[in-house]
Amino acid sequence: MSDVLKIAIAGLGTVGGGTVRLLTEHAELLALRAGRPLAIVACAALDKPPELPLVGVPFFADARRMVADCDYDVLVELIGGSGGVALDVVTAALGRGCHVVTANKAMIAHHGLALALQAERAGVTFGFEAAVAGGIPIIKALREGLAGNRIQQIYGILNGTCNYILTTMRETGREFAEVLAEAQALGYAEADPSFDIDGIDAAHKLSILTSLAFGTAVDFGQVHIEGIRHVSALDIRFAEELGYRIKLLGIARRTETGIEQRVHPCMVPINSSIGRVDGVFNAVVAEGDFVGRTVFEGRGAGAGPTASAVVADLVDIAAGRRRPTFGVPAGRLEPLRCAAMDDHRGAYYIRLMVVDRPGVFAEIATALRDEQVSMESILQHGRAPGETVSVVMTIHDTREAAMNRAIRRIGAIDAMVEPPRLIRIEAF
Amino acid sequence: MSDVLKIAIAGLGTVGGGTVRLLTEHAELLALRAGRPLAIVACAALDKPPELPLVGVPFFADARRMVADCDYDVLVELIGGSGGVALDVVTAALGRGCHVVTANKAMIAHHGLALALQAERAGVTFGFEAAVAGGIPIIKALREGLAGNRIQQIYGILNGTCNYILTTMRETGREFAEVLAEAQALGYAEADPSFDIDGIDAAHKLSILTSLAFGTAVDFGQVHIEGIRHVSALDIRFAEELGYRIKLLGIARRTETGIEQRVHPCMVPINSSIGRVDGVFNAVVAEGDFVGRTVFEGRGAGAGPTASAVVADLVDIAAGRRRPTFGVPAGRLEPLRCAAMDDHRGAYYIRLMVVDRPGVFAEIATALRDEQVSMESILQHGRAPGETVSVVMTIHDTREAAMNRAIRRIGAIDAMVEPPRLIRIEAF
Repeated sequence: MSDVLKIAIAGLGTVGGGTVRLLTEHAELLALRAGRPLAIVACAALDKPPELPLVGVPFFADARRMVADCDYDVLVELIGGSGGVALDVVTAALGRGCHVVTANKAMIAHHGLALALQAERAGVTFGFEAAVAGGIPIIKALREGLAGNRIQQIYGILNGTCNYILTTMRETGREFAEVLAEAQALGYAEADPSFDIDGIDAAHKLSILTSLAFGTAVDFGQVHIEGIRHVSALDIRFAEELGYRIKLLGIARRTETGIEQRVHPCMVPINSSIGRVDGVFNAVVAEGDFVGRTVFEGRGAGAGPTASAVVADLVDIAAGRRRPTFGVPAGRLEPLRCAAMDDHRGAYYIRLMVVDRPGVFAEIATALRDEQVSMESILQHGRAPGETVSVVMTIHDTREAAMNRAIRRIGAIDAMVEPPRLIRIEAF
Repeated sequence: MSDVLKIAIAGLGTVGGGTVRLLTEHAELLALRAGRPLAIVACAALDKPPELPLVGVPFFADARRMVADCDYDVLVELIGGSGGVALDVVTAALGRGCHVVTANKAMIAHHGLALALQAERAGVTFGFEAAVAGGIPIIKALREGLAGNRIQQIYGILNGTCNYILTTMRETGREFAEVLAEAQALGYAEADPSFDIDGIDAAHKLSILTSLAFGTAVDFGQVHIEGIRHVSALDIRFAEELGYRIKLLGIARRTETGIEQRVHPCMVPINSSIGRVDGVFNAVVAEGDFVGRTVFEGRGAGAGPTASAVVADLVDIAAGRRRPTFGVPAGRLEPLRCAAMDDHRGAYYIRLMVVDRPGVFAEIATALRDEQVSMESILQHGRAPGETVSVVMTIHDTREAAMNRAIRRIGAIDAMVEPPRLIRIEAF
């Protein structure tokens, strides 16, 4: 058996702990699969968790020092954050000609191209299977398993916290704020949940998938992002009635005007592959010109699934399996030509809260007609003259710019008691 | 850019044609992803289809001659059949130190270990991503993407023809024979459909998945196989009423007495990942100790999806990515210690056609009690004294041997007008 692969781990939190456990518990199996043993030779964290099987492994309170001073083949970066220590140690390790494995989607979203260029110049691997959709081997699938395809679109549920909140809202009929508070109490959502619920985390991941799927440079700045704060229990109920589920999706799609790259709540058919994925599960759908539709589903976070992905990268490195970081050489990635959201064509759900009085419908219909937006269906339960009622419309095949103009006009109608709510419908 | 990867293709049917088209249409993209061009340097088939872009490519009516006489790096074997020409050319190519890529599940099911040993001795790749679940990159996922896991169970819908027939039976209420005839007329089922509908094809694929998942030698002879000929429209209706769908599944699972390896119709919950996969789609669920449950879904057959899988193997070879054929070195695969079906514990659906007369239920109940089998529920619509009625029971957590003894006794009851039907229930 060949030489040991020497691993230095920076970060011993949930994912770091899981990775240490996996490497220890499955040491024999991994050596068999990789063709050589994998060994942790150093670790760094603010504190060394005493319960981890790290006896005899040199410990550093300063990750930068570990990366500079130790002898290792691979740095596993599990500190997190797009810059700071994480970026410093990754850059330093690549600079020393060492491989890097990370779960840090924020860092890749912001510095992916530069790091890939650095890694490829150094002839080492920069692996980040764990950065997207946890245990689902979607990075490998796009880069290698579907390498024969031109990808037409890729989309998915990329944030488990949002999917958990939306699923719970549907199951319990409760409102967003209440369910979020409960998720925080249960540890399913962070104390500062904005990265998750405002769609930033999903957008980080989507920007990585876009690069792999389309051979374009990671371009987080061009992701259109909307979160789930405005999704109400009422919308979820209406969605159900219309045959839809509300999911926060990341979508990247080739269109005539460029590649759409967007994260926002969507209504998807209840019986679609993606509509049925509930709770903390993630799912990614990739459509290729030869393979057709493929669906990948699994746990998107947590110690075990993320460690599984980290170790898959380590086994590839140990076995000497090399590949361009984003599927094609980093120097050959093209700039992302992003389609403007104004040019998006699609279907829409619109919910209005209006005072039920004569003439309101005529005003709404006029606004739509003037912008040449055709209504597909309208839903209103009962009538309550003089009181507030909810009116739900679905609109099909409309350009986003026209839709927005119509919505602005509708929002200005006197009888409107709150701003119109708009959710895009995707007919997967 | 490095040297061209020289490809010889044996077999120019549906999959061969798709592979030629993919390699031609995406030549530039593939060269970028693989780091070198991929070129077809020879092809063999009974006839050379004139519509394929093979102008100038040497053609052989005798695949054995092509394999012996040409200069190539990889043989792509798409002839089919577990032995004969297919096995001859694969063995000959490996013997010359060339890589082999194949979609031939029958050959791997019967000769997988020997071929893997030969390939690994020669230091070449024996790739068969296309042999299981068409375009779904499940072989790569098991071998590499989930390499950090001990797999606890793997199961899936592995035969698109059966899934199409069962889906159509459910949607139309028609009987098996009629739907099969229609599927044959439409080209979804072979003129001799027994390989598909008797579960042989699914069993070939399952034996390959078992090897990859558990590190055991491929052992097709130890697959317990039942097909779908006996599934009736009535069973599908009752399944629906009980909250289940009937699917032909391949299941491999670790148990205390060994590894279960079985192919048979199953009732699965309507809302399970696998219960919702309809038509010609395949799906595979792999459960690992760290990653948890992962689901992979896509088209299981056809020119495009299968070509996608063939080319994924070719890109790996071109890029120099090596791996043990079945995830661990072939010489280290352990013999499969298979669990006896008699030791299987699970749930069962039983349908009896009985003459509705006093005392019948008592006889059935006695047979169950004597074998210590506990009924969970019983379903009968209306009563029709003196006439034949269907009685459906579900049984939970019973040993297969006891279940079979009880069924034999029940089958011998006078009032029974046809043999009892038994379908296993899997509570995924």
